Amino acid sequence: MAVIGVGLIGGSLSLGLKEAGAVEVVVGCGRKRPNLETAKELGVVDEFTHDPAEAVKGADLVFLATPVLSIVPLVEKISAASALMDGVILTDGGSVKTALVEPIEKVLPPGARFVGSHPVAGAETVGAAAARPNLFSGRKCVLTPTERTDRDALNKIARMWEIVGMKTVVMDPLSHDRALAFVSHLPHMAAYALVEAVADFEETDPRPLELAAGGFRDITRIASSSPDVWREICLTNKGPILESISHYAKALEEIRKLVEAEDGDGLEAHFERARSARNSIADGEGKKS
Amino acid sequence: MAVIGVGLIGGSLSLGLKEAGAVEVVVGCGRKRPNLETAKELGVVDEFTHDPAEAVKGADLVFLATPVLSIVPLVEKISAASALMDGVILTDGGSVKTALVEPIEKVLPPGARFVGSHPVAGAETVGAAAARPNLFSGRKCVLTPTERTDRDALNKIARMWEIVGMKTVVMDPLSHDRALAFVSHLPHMAAYALVEAVADFEETDPRPLELAAGGFRDITRIASSSPDVWREICLTNKGPILESISHYAKALEEIRKLVEAEDGDGLEAHFERARSARNSIADGEGKKS
Repeated sequence: MAVIGVGLIGGSLSLGLKEAGAVEVVVGCGRKRPNLETAKELGVVDEFTHDPAEAVKGADLVFLATPVLSIVPLVEKISAASALMDGVILTDGGSVKTALVEPIEKVLPPGARFVGSHPVAGAETVGAAAARPNLFSGRKCVLTPTERTDRDALNKIARMWEIVGMKTVVMDPLSHDRALAFVSHLPHMAAYALVEAVADFEETDPRPLELAAGGFRDITRIASSSPDVWREICLTNKGPILESISHYAKALEEIRKLVEAEDGDGLEAHFERARSARNSIADGEGKKS
Repeated sequence: MAVIGVGLIGGSLSLGLKEAGAVEVVVGCGRKRPNLETAKELGVVDEFTHDPAEAVKGADLVFLATPVLSIVPLVEKISAASALMDGVILTDGGSVKTALVEPIEKVLPPGARFVGSHPVAGAETVGAAAARPNLFSGRKCVLTPTERTDRDALNKIARMWEIVGMKTVVMDPLSHDRALAFVSHLPHMAAYALVEAVADFEETDPRPLELAAGGFRDITRIASSSPDVWREICLTNKGPILESISHYAKALEEIRKLVEAEDGDGLEAHFERARSARNSIADGEGKKS
């Protein structure tokens, strides 16, 4: 198995599969030598290289776990180097799919099989040192096959994610991207905008932030996420993100109108609907939060 | 001491002051008999009554801890009943201040002194059974004196909140309301709108919510708050809430434009600014979250 990008996601998959005895030798590939050395010391990978074409040689499974914008150029590079073994299965961990799946299918050589994956898991830590075998346990993994996807490869990749504890969900790439825009990308944009609005106001009066209670901290925690990751997501999932922001702006405008009209019953009904929807999500997750 | 409204806030202040030996007899007042009985059993209050005028008789300290919209009518009632002792100090726990402070000052009889307070604390639990003496510990309490406020009463109320562990901050009522609109009321509106937008989308495709990860749950947790409380806040803090929504809609539109223009550098700079602002808040709170 080759893991290109030995960070939290790549490293955790490697550890999980090793722990289950599902892989023999894992070759890690990355740009930063200290991170790869740490990965080897911790048993996250068995060998490492800086050259992706070198890493995939002889591998029957390749996991692409680098930042979203780098994945297609990476596949182009290893395809051009004729480094892939016939029958190899490649999958990725990218959090957008339309921008990846079709371009990857186009550049791969015949005999190499690709299945798009998005393991919906993560943490606020990065790097191989943060990898842990149970990172994916109990979380969902979306698989995004197309009509070109080999069914045997799809089953094998589904099984791979199940071995590390994930529940797999099959969706087409665009449905995945729209769903993620609403439940993940939009909340991030909403949190960023909230911090901006408060920071704007703070320039005229520096005291509000002192008063920020738990709710504000909860809602803006995700605004501490990595700006370069979110830049990539915005660039690669533009259409669905614009769609979700437009729905959101409409919902916000509805609330603004109710406040302006001092429509108490309308506000309460609105808030009650949102509470029910929110609670049904929490129930669906089987968690009280 | 009289506590009108023996819920989480009223009950916790009573318990905290009792534990510190700062009050002798606490008379609780409320509408629901089972809650008052629980309060007495748990030692939250020593006696109780359903009649606010009865409750304040002989009290030198009155804490108004009922829902925001009920506070002014309540003060009118006890003033009209001539139930207040000369020199009595009243304070409240309302989360909006402009709508309360001036109307209360107008209806109180001479000899009764009022200081507006907002203890910025709370939890997802309600009722006297949820009261605990350390609820306020380490949190901020805003005091909102006006030129009519008696300085001795202000000092005494500040001391009262300090006894239960709060840090006091003095602001005029409108500054308080604008600050809270940005750091508390706006985040709630943003969360309600987010749940609405996702629920809208879910009608066309039921799968996104299955994929909601931690970020979505964090940001929408506060949309589970009590709809009737938020109805009252929207009705009593209309101007500042409209101002905050308008700043927010502008910040969101800026992000939307950057996404539409595929301006990667602009997005990253924007997200970086928000992250720095967010982290400075977290640092200011002395918490890692």
